[in-house]
Amino acid sequence: MKKLVLVAHGSRRQASNEEVKDLAARVEKHLPSGFSGVKVAFLELASPSIEAAIDSGYEEGASELLVLPYFLSAGTHVAKDVPSEVAKAMDKWPDKKIDIAPHIGSLDSMIDLIISVCH
Amino acid sequence: MKKLVLVAHGSRRQASNEEVKDLAARVEKHLPSGFSGVKVAFLELASPSIEAAIDSGYEEGASELLVLPYFLSAGTHVAKDVPSEVAKAMDKWPDKKIDIAPHIGSLDSMIDLIISVCH
Repeated sequence: MKKLVLVAHGSRRQASNEEVKDLAARVEKHLPSGFSGVKVAFLELASPSIEAAIDSGYEEGASELLVLPYFLSAGTHVAKDVPSEVAKAMDKWPDKKIDIAPHIGSLDSMIDLIISVCH
Repeated sequence: MKKLVLVAHGSRRQASNEEVKDLAARVEKHLPSGFSGVKVAFLELASPSIEAAIDSGYEEGASELLVLPYFLSAGTHVAKDVPSEVAKAMDKWPDKKIDIAPHIGSLDSMIDLIISVCH
């Protein structure tokens, strides 16, 4: 069974971190078959860390994780920091599978989401 | 005729600003009837500013603007800075209409966008 790991930047403002956690909880209710849950992780300034979320995903029995960078643009965080944290965590899980999806701002469906506000 | 104003934070990294401009150009090709174009604006670190984008939207003939904060969470930028910049710009356009949409991270369709990566 797979789990989705939603990785946000993290904020000093606790309400922003809670907003991501609330979103993940809402996503969790609509996951397609094949996915058993959503883990939230923060690159910095908040917890759980990416490593902690990955550990906990596998410890809960996931055979595979899909990491989704919840970032609007492809800066250093998306290009280097998230992959580096994922690689570090995966040293502990040599037999498990993990994928990193493109960052949310680069998905084609972002266009539809923006257009939806015009209706 | 309306125009959409996509307001991003703005980055020192020029490629991130270009990514927003590219996205706006792609959105512009799929706008519903009633909308004649998309303006991009940056809150800081890049141009055009919100004020410049609003001025240019009305100067190009828009009767109404819809401002969409391209932010994932409802921090100070969304709650105060964007509305304040919009209000400042509108002092010059007392007869024109403007609306500010909820920030992109709060839209219900964000859930569908996230779930789309699981398919």
